[in-house]
Amino acid sequence: MNSADQIRKIIEHQLEIADIDRSPEMLYSPIRYALGSGGKRMRPVLTLLSCEAFSDQWQSALNAAMAIEIFHNFTLLHDDIMDNSSMRRGQPTVHCRWNDNTAILSGDAMLILSYEILARSNPELIVKLLPIFTRVALEVCEGQQLDMDFESCEEVSLENYIEMIRLKTGVLLAGAVQLGALCGGASDKDAELMYEFGVNLGLLFQITDDILDTYGDPKVFGKSIGGDILCRKKTFLLVSALQNATEQQRDRLCKLLEDESLAAAEKIAAVTAIYDEFNIRQVAEQASDKYFRLAMEALEQVSLDKNRKSELAEYATKIRYREK
Amino acid sequence: MNSADQIRKIIEHQLEIADIDRSPEMLYSPIRYALGSGGKRMRPVLTLLSCEAFSDQWQSALNAAMAIEIFHNFTLLHDDIMDNSSMRRGQPTVHCRWNDNTAILSGDAMLILSYEILARSNPELIVKLLPIFTRVALEVCEGQQLDMDFESCEEVSLENYIEMIRLKTGVLLAGAVQLGALCGGASDKDAELMYEFGVNLGLLFQITDDILDTYGDPKVFGKSIGGDILCRKKTFLLVSALQNATEQQRDRLCKLLEDESLAAAEKIAAVTAIYDEFNIRQVAEQASDKYFRLAMEALEQVSLDKNRKSELAEYATKIRYREK
Repeated sequence: MNSADQIRKIIEHQLEIADIDRSPEMLYSPIRYALGSGGKRMRPVLTLLSCEAFSDQWQSALNAAMAIEIFHNFTLLHDDIMDNSSMRRGQPTVHCRWNDNTAILSGDAMLILSYEILARSNPELIVKLLPIFTRVALEVCEGQQLDMDFESCEEVSLENYIEMIRLKTGVLLAGAVQLGALCGGASDKDAELMYEFGVNLGLLFQITDDILDTYGDPKVFGKSIGGDILCRKKTFLLVSALQNATEQQRDRLCKLLEDESLAAAEKIAAVTAIYDEFNIRQVAEQASDKYFRLAMEALEQVSLDKNRKSELAEYATKIRYREK
Repeated sequence: MNSADQIRKIIEHQLEIADIDRSPEMLYSPIRYALGSGGKRMRPVLTLLSCEAFSDQWQSALNAAMAIEIFHNFTLLHDDIMDNSSMRRGQPTVHCRWNDNTAILSGDAMLILSYEILARSNPELIVKLLPIFTRVALEVCEGQQLDMDFESCEEVSLENYIEMIRLKTGVLLAGAVQLGALCGGASDKDAELMYEFGVNLGLLFQITDDILDTYGDPKVFGKSIGGDILCRKKTFLLVSALQNATEQQRDRLCKLLEDESLAAAEKIAAVTAIYDEFNIRQVAEQASDKYFRLAMEALEQVSLDKNRKSELAEYATKIRYREK
């Protein structure tokens, strides 16, 4: 059995040798740029680890893993246009380095490429994987739409926020794990438990992201701290704070977030101070713990020996306690 | 056997009852808007006619036909952003009626929906249809990229132009026909001949489009005449004219196209006059005839009784001699 680190190297290598050296150059070079810019490769690693839990042949899940990773990177290309983000993984985003049209069309091609690679799986698998991959892909779009809808919403309930991140982030991790399990020969029931494991992992991943954006160690996190506060993003922290606040406190928080005269560092410090008043960090850590527990409970129910699930459990623990 | 008109009504009905009444509303209502705005439905009509040539069960090609039509409409959503087009089929385009982000994300969802619907085909068919659909989809993106590349190209050869429209327009018609044939139980060889029929139909369709944009009857054509000239689009007419012109004539034509001081009607008349000098209309009609002949030759080679191919032959003739 391979460790997550070994699996990650396999993924990087497969991305390097993927046959995307095609023409026209202006369509495919942004794709190579996007796929070559690193990242955690968390989703394909989960696919292969999940496959290896059920079978010794991680190779049978390789196409599914690549399809998931290429799909994920397609969403980043288009999300970066929609959110007008200029940097990703320390590099200019595709729409900034080239232009919006390039990012739209190369993104489209990546989405299709993800299907091209999925379709290389063996025929019996294709018929099982295709509807799952497609449902998840559509749900990711639905999640992105909800996220954009929330921007212009005054109030978002914690329940709606969780539903949004379930769609935007959770289901793709869940699908990654489920596809891997099916490629490894898991029963439908076990594959569904693996989906449950993955979706909860996705939720805690996103909540941890929200925590780190405000409370992370800038030296470790790799991005500057407070970005979510500055762009008034509806995160787990903000949504929780607004939900717990009195009307007066809510007004204070909203005015603070909208105050254009405040320097960035001051605004971040002031909003964080309000979060601290409400113990929001602890609330978020508890939510993260809850989803971690749910993930582990799903994994425990999978009908495999414990030692076959240890790499997945360890990887999930790493995701829970990550600092970057 | 159904006539093309009957088939078109079947398609319209299927689009009306397609289950795209989903949430979030902001994601799916632009999709319903785009799919409900009419159009010739040429591609899905070809899919069902092609299926009916081989079998009496057009129903078995319905999912493929819908997938092709939804895919085609996805390309229109994104192309309209890239080309900054404000009107389509007499209605505001999605990115104008809503905004760019909506058109990007709803377009993405349509692309995925096209796979969702294709995946409803029976399992043996899916495995055959999926790689063809996917290859064609990717080639359409490649064609769109070439079309955009040509905008900043001073010289485009007629050969490169034909390759661009083969990818951008031809292969999707070809795929529509090939998928229909396979759904109808055609042999791989017949399905490939049907592809040949479709790709040539696509080429003549696009060249006819170019002719009509300059030489169409404004009362019949439905769009104003001369749009391609005003936006200096590299069409069959312009590429042929530039190819046949002396250096002096080419300079005259380019200066005319770039002249911002000329009124629209004057510019259109002047450029058309140059086209007439070179007999460009006849050159284009001859090219259209050539591809029509190639399409018919491919259709004739298909191992079916002539009467089973008559609807397709008639439909191709309609496309060749269309005035709108």
